[in-house]
Amino acid sequence: MPEVDIVLVEPLYEGNVGFAARVMKNFGFKNLVLVNPCRLGDEAIARSSHARELLESAERITLEEVFERSSLTIATTGTLGKSVTNPMRMPYYSPAELRKIIEPIDGRVSILFGRENWGLNNEEVRRADIICTIPTSDEYPIVNISHAVGIICYELAALPRGEYLLATRLEMDCLYHHISTFLDRIEHPPEKRATTLLLIRRLLGRTLLTAREASTVHGLLRRTEWHLDHPEGDKSDQVPPDSNDPC
Amino acid sequence: MPEVDIVLVEPLYEGNVGFAARVMKNFGFKNLVLVNPCRLGDEAIARSSHARELLESAERITLEEVFERSSLTIATTGTLGKSVTNPMRMPYYSPAELRKIIEPIDGRVSILFGRENWGLNNEEVRRADIICTIPTSDEYPIVNISHAVGIICYELAALPRGEYLLATRLEMDCLYHHISTFLDRIEHPPEKRATTLLLIRRLLGRTLLTAREASTVHGLLRRTEWHLDHPEGDKSDQVPPDSNDPC
Repeated sequence: MPEVDIVLVEPLYEGNVGFAARVMKNFGFKNLVLVNPCRLGDEAIARSSHARELLESAERITLEEVFERSSLTIATTGTLGKSVTNPMRMPYYSPAELRKIIEPIDGRVSILFGRENWGLNNEEVRRADIICTIPTSDEYPIVNISHAVGIICYELAALPRGEYLLATRLEMDCLYHHISTFLDRIEHPPEKRATTLLLIRRLLGRTLLTAREASTVHGLLRRTEWHLDHPEGDKSDQVPPDSNDPC
Repeated sequence: MPEVDIVLVEPLYEGNVGFAARVMKNFGFKNLVLVNPCRLGDEAIARSSHARELLESAERITLEEVFERSSLTIATTGTLGKSVTNPMRMPYYSPAELRKIIEPIDGRVSILFGRENWGLNNEEVRRADIICTIPTSDEYPIVNISHAVGIICYELAALPRGEYLLATRLEMDCLYHHISTFLDRIEHPPEKRATTLLLIRRLLGRTLLTAREASTVHGLLRRTEWHLDHPEGDKSDQVPPDSNDPC
């Protein structure tokens, strides 16, 4: 991934600048560039919350300098009107497509966000290498600038969901085997067996069990088996097994 | 897709409610549900901008009613700490995964967003069917509620990028053919031909030309050919062709 600069071109409201800084940091982006911004005061600081340092370290340079130093410059634009053959604003890419385009770039990519009232002007769009448009509802396509920055940063970060341990193939096979022997134990009719096992496999398969969930289902089966083997009055001689031995 | 209700649980700041309404409408969502919200005044209305009617038509019901009437209830939570085996907040899905899960559902899906200061409490999370977490940077994982609503709505809407006309396979093949004859015309060395055509195919292939762009490249080649055929002094007898005939 390249260095990504988020460039706000002549933002009009300090609250939006603060909010944009915050959501950038939420997704791990740090380089905020401000081109001729409004005055930033207490509201910008309040809205930036724990991303105040992004505001304070924001570069203030001209758009000329942005274009000069960037390997690739992206113009973000609102959803287009009818003149879709106008090459100035065509073709455009979605944020997800943009990620794939810039991923292999080793250099600086600058992403321009326009003014709250009328976006980027034609000359600014013309000079950009690539156009990116967030797909929106026709009924109300004007996205607040901080929301637009948030969605672009969310897509470009493509942060992993975070790790959690799904049950392995072996653990799932052990579980299916256990269920099969359990069906024997409760005298499930042999002629229905294949269909029922398939149904269970479909059901548990699509839930993507975590290792812990698989282990808990094992445990519940074992505990049930113990009670089947130890009918009323026979309970005192052994506690139900709760080990986690696979199979 | 099901009906999707965006449920803000005890939101504390009216500005966030207004902003959430706005970004919902940006992505075509209309059902705003408020559980014991703060007072909504001028700031909420101002922030909602052209989504004021969502604020005004927002349902105010109890969380109990939300759970009762929903086919599926989703709890959104911040990025987790260490106790990743806690089944209360595990397993969790990303917004993109959530979309795939709810897509086939025909009914009402409610998505809960918690309070700005401490999210959803354990009891609220416990009762939800599915957990959804927006992946964030460890350094600053606390996403403003309106940004969270925006990202979820953006993902669930999965709006098409919008249509623009890419050159068809036939148009691209015509263009490659034209380029090949052009290379003949400028006496490009035959032994280099295959490699050069491949390079051009790779280059134009990855740019995904629009129909208009392909047509313009054709036109430029034709115009160049005309000038090659009409050296200096011979210009007056014909204007360069600018037709769009394929091949």
